[in-house]
Amino acid sequence: MAGMDKSKIGGGKNRGEKGLFEKVWTLANHRGFVFPSAEIYGGIAGIYDLGPLGAKMKNNLIQAWREFFVLRETNPPVYELDGSTILPYDALKASGHLDSFTDPTVSCLKCKKWMRADHLIEDSLGMYVEGMTPEELTKIIRENNLVCPDCRGGLSDVSVFNLMLGVQVGPAGGQIAFLRPETAQDIFLDFKRVQQSMRAKLPFGIAQIGKSYRNEISPRQGLIRVREFTQMEIEMFVHPKEIGNHPSFDKVKDVKIRILTREQQKKGETEPMEMTATEAQEKKILPNPYMAYYLAKETIFYQSLGIPYDKFHFRHMMPEETPFYSGGNFDLEVELSIGRKEIIGNAYRTNYDLSNHMKKSGKDLSISIDGEKVIPEVVEPSFGVERAIYCVLEHCYREDDGRGWSWFQFPPKIAPITALILPLVRKEPLMEISFKTYENLKENGLDVDYDDRGSVGKRYARADEIGIPFCVTIDYDTTKANTVTIRDRDSREQAFINKDDLVGIILKLVSGVIQFGDLL
Amino acid sequence: MAGMDKSKIGGGKNRGEKGLFEKVWTLANHRGFVFPSAEIYGGIAGIYDLGPLGAKMKNNLIQAWREFFVLRETNPPVYELDGSTILPYDALKASGHLDSFTDPTVSCLKCKKWMRADHLIEDSLGMYVEGMTPEELTKIIRENNLVCPDCRGGLSDVSVFNLMLGVQVGPAGGQIAFLRPETAQDIFLDFKRVQQSMRAKLPFGIAQIGKSYRNEISPRQGLIRVREFTQMEIEMFVHPKEIGNHPSFDKVKDVKIRILTREQQKKGETEPMEMTATEAQEKKILPNPYMAYYLAKETIFYQSLGIPYDKFHFRHMMPEETPFYSGGNFDLEVELSIGRKEIIGNAYRTNYDLSNHMKKSGKDLSISIDGEKVIPEVVEPSFGVERAIYCVLEHCYREDDGRGWSWFQFPPKIAPITALILPLVRKEPLMEISFKTYENLKENGLDVDYDDRGSVGKRYARADEIGIPFCVTIDYDTTKANTVTIRDRDSREQAFINKDDLVGIILKLVSGVIQFGDLL
Repeated sequence: MAGMDKSKIGGGKNRGEKGLFEKVWTLANHRGFVFPSAEIYGGIAGIYDLGPLGAKMKNNLIQAWREFFVLRETNPPVYELDGSTILPYDALKASGHLDSFTDPTVSCLKCKKWMRADHLIEDSLGMYVEGMTPEELTKIIRENNLVCPDCRGGLSDVSVFNLMLGVQVGPAGGQIAFLRPETAQDIFLDFKRVQQSMRAKLPFGIAQIGKSYRNEISPRQGLIRVREFTQMEIEMFVHPKEIGNHPSFDKVKDVKIRILTREQQKKGETEPMEMTATEAQEKKILPNPYMAYYLAKETIFYQSLGIPYDKFHFRHMMPEETPFYSGGNFDLEVELSIGRKEIIGNAYRTNYDLSNHMKKSGKDLSISIDGEKVIPEVVEPSFGVERAIYCVLEHCYREDDGRGWSWFQFPPKIAPITALILPLVRKEPLMEISFKTYENLKENGLDVDYDDRGSVGKRYARADEIGIPFCVTIDYDTTKANTVTIRDRDSREQAFINKDDLVGIILKLVSGVIQFGDLL
Repeated sequence: MAGMDKSKIGGGKNRGEKGLFEKVWTLANHRGFVFPSAEIYGGIAGIYDLGPLGAKMKNNLIQAWREFFVLRETNPPVYELDGSTILPYDALKASGHLDSFTDPTVSCLKCKKWMRADHLIEDSLGMYVEGMTPEELTKIIRENNLVCPDCRGGLSDVSVFNLMLGVQVGPAGGQIAFLRPETAQDIFLDFKRVQQSMRAKLPFGIAQIGKSYRNEISPRQGLIRVREFTQMEIEMFVHPKEIGNHPSFDKVKDVKIRILTREQQKKGETEPMEMTATEAQEKKILPNPYMAYYLAKETIFYQSLGIPYDKFHFRHMMPEETPFYSGGNFDLEVELSIGRKEIIGNAYRTNYDLSNHMKKSGKDLSISIDGEKVIPEVVEPSFGVERAIYCVLEHCYREDDGRGWSWFQFPPKIAPITALILPLVRKEPLMEISFKTYENLKENGLDVDYDDRGSVGKRYARADEIGIPFCVTIDYDTTKANTVTIRDRDSREQAFINKDDLVGIILKLVSGVIQFGDLL
């Protein structure tokens, strides 16, 4: 996410149905998607581990993103960087994070608990206090006689708290450094090195996937507000005179996107407007076609993850939520049971970061073009991975089609396990054939599992519960006619196919070349 | 790497030809493999960023490892975890890292420089001081009148320095935590959660790929001794009564491995012995067949990365280098121009970690098997990614076949770029056909590049220099006969193929199904 636009994440608005969040979260804990980190020692609030299923989903999601936003992009091309998570003081002083990456906090004078002052006011009074100074927030707390929500003790004045985690590198008297608050800064710092080593011409992008860190005062809502998280960010560098022309805009021009404009928000409207990328551009709702290009691609990508089109939109951030250097921020917000949550931040960062680093470092980061020196402008889409995983879990959760158990309708390409191989009964030669089939599918690069414990019905139920799209049963027909039964998670229909065709058919089902119905 | 076996990494022995290291390192810097992090602000010693080519190679290397050591493993199966890099004080106190993950250090009383006391003595006196106490090291320094190698000032007494980087999580008075010194600890902490959620039966493995951190006193030798690095680790959990039986040992039994035994080392021998996995097992050189299984697989894997068989071996660590709980450590050491360097640590960690965490956390981490409670034993292979990348760079570097430029002979599956597409001349329709060919290859998941600047010979040279295995030239025959010229980096031979067959042929060349010679 962009450096400063952390404002509304997980805010107090729109708190809805609690039951669904708890059901999904409990299931995710029990079935190996996510665990509290170092749980046996009590852990650290807001720090989680992805278990075997969560880690596979993360790998699938990252790979899908990398293909769609990096590897297959040709014009402009996008290069990937893999930079350090520890950055020196000077770099983060220059980027503005040391001074501005802060939250307003207040502590209870009695129980010593710390909390976010803005959240306390929003939760207690329903007031919108974005952008207010510590003094203004203190005044509101005093005028309304707010007290600690836990113990009803008195509250301190509001102060600002920097969200970066500090580390001291080297022995005594060593170097002060920080864990990066966003992956973007490595990209700006390395901009010139990447441009020169790749002989890159504007426009081009630099992407990065990796961990970032925020010392949140009060982490909450599972994977939505955490202290350690994974980002996928792209900084797209464009000649300032060419920001009005995206060379591949035609590829997305007719994609429909949903936008909640500033005007709508001023009127209190919550239902976004639908328009094509071209319309958004022509109506000047978006600052440039690079922003339109990303909003369109994100709309396609999020639907491919199983988030319905009408459950997310882009909200134009209000002026008080937008960093001063920004030419416009558009957050992708997903509707969840716990409210609308920002999952992607899209920021038109102008040339702010490069100019600033040029000034502070004294190094020339401009590019020479036809004899003139150019500082490129930047458009940045910034994805949160763990948040996306939670959105996928909640939007793919199903319990109402009468099958008697809950299940996840994950799209096959991001499902942690693609197929479960099972012998009809725990007898030979069925078990051996099943295990060999399982081995063969693994050798062909498919992520599959083997299960011979319990009745077939029970095994189907367990497979559904963790969202395995296909079950392959080996039975006595396999020994006679070399056929296997393949069951579709979504329709619960079964097809009979030749065992030798299994790898090819599953690959086609995953890539979407065929649908399960084609097998019937 | 195992928690405590950091001892010999980058030690002072065997320092050889300097020229090669510097040539490879300079080229890697200029061509986008690796940059100092935050270089424009002077950076932090021992912290690097992987540039576009280094990041691609890392992704390829990780994917190759994940397929070979995790995804395709069936018996025992291996699950992947993605845990946090921040771990609480209690967990690292219990693991022993707080007390034992230390280096002996000494500082100059005049210029205030800190250095490793053991390295100083080894470099100055050629003495082997592994395992000595700070008092013993101080005595040696005094007796030999050692002084600061930089300014010849007097030296302090030797003290111990903890290598973990601390972070304080939460607001004032928050929780003391550390950046993890190895990925292994997350695995032990989550062991029970993974076992239960996956319903896993012994034996099974848990793998993790991710960043770890060490506050090295004096980082050096580029990517070999760094402060932030990526590990790929597996903890294989085995029933203590079954440690003598690996269910898939037959798959590796005839693989030849090179081992430098303890006896050889005592005699001062440096040439390893060659034996099959079965022989190593039968001669009781290795503690168990799980260790033999990994040594065999690592031998296959490292060769597939382009490291010649006779340029690496496994060294049985001497007793004073081995942690007290270990049943034997075998380091994979690669011969480099800067000496023999440990790239993989293999440790038989017994049940030390789980037992210890049970004791300290008070939580039951045992598994119930047939009514009895079992604490599994652990065999751990631990890979360093950045070090592996440096080994690949150095061992694939070529300059002596008369082509007039240096080049990298990367195996196609880990080469950052698989093919370069180029028009014979900067003219239409050749440029348009070339760009469309490039786009088509990208859409088919191939990592390719496009280049139309300079003569064909210059473009071939640039491609060789970054190790691109294949160049595809579009010329006037393409417009007439739909053929393209494909050039092989290694042999510099050229073949003419139909443009429509290009994707399939490149995929087969990368996977090794065909060799370039088959096209001639």
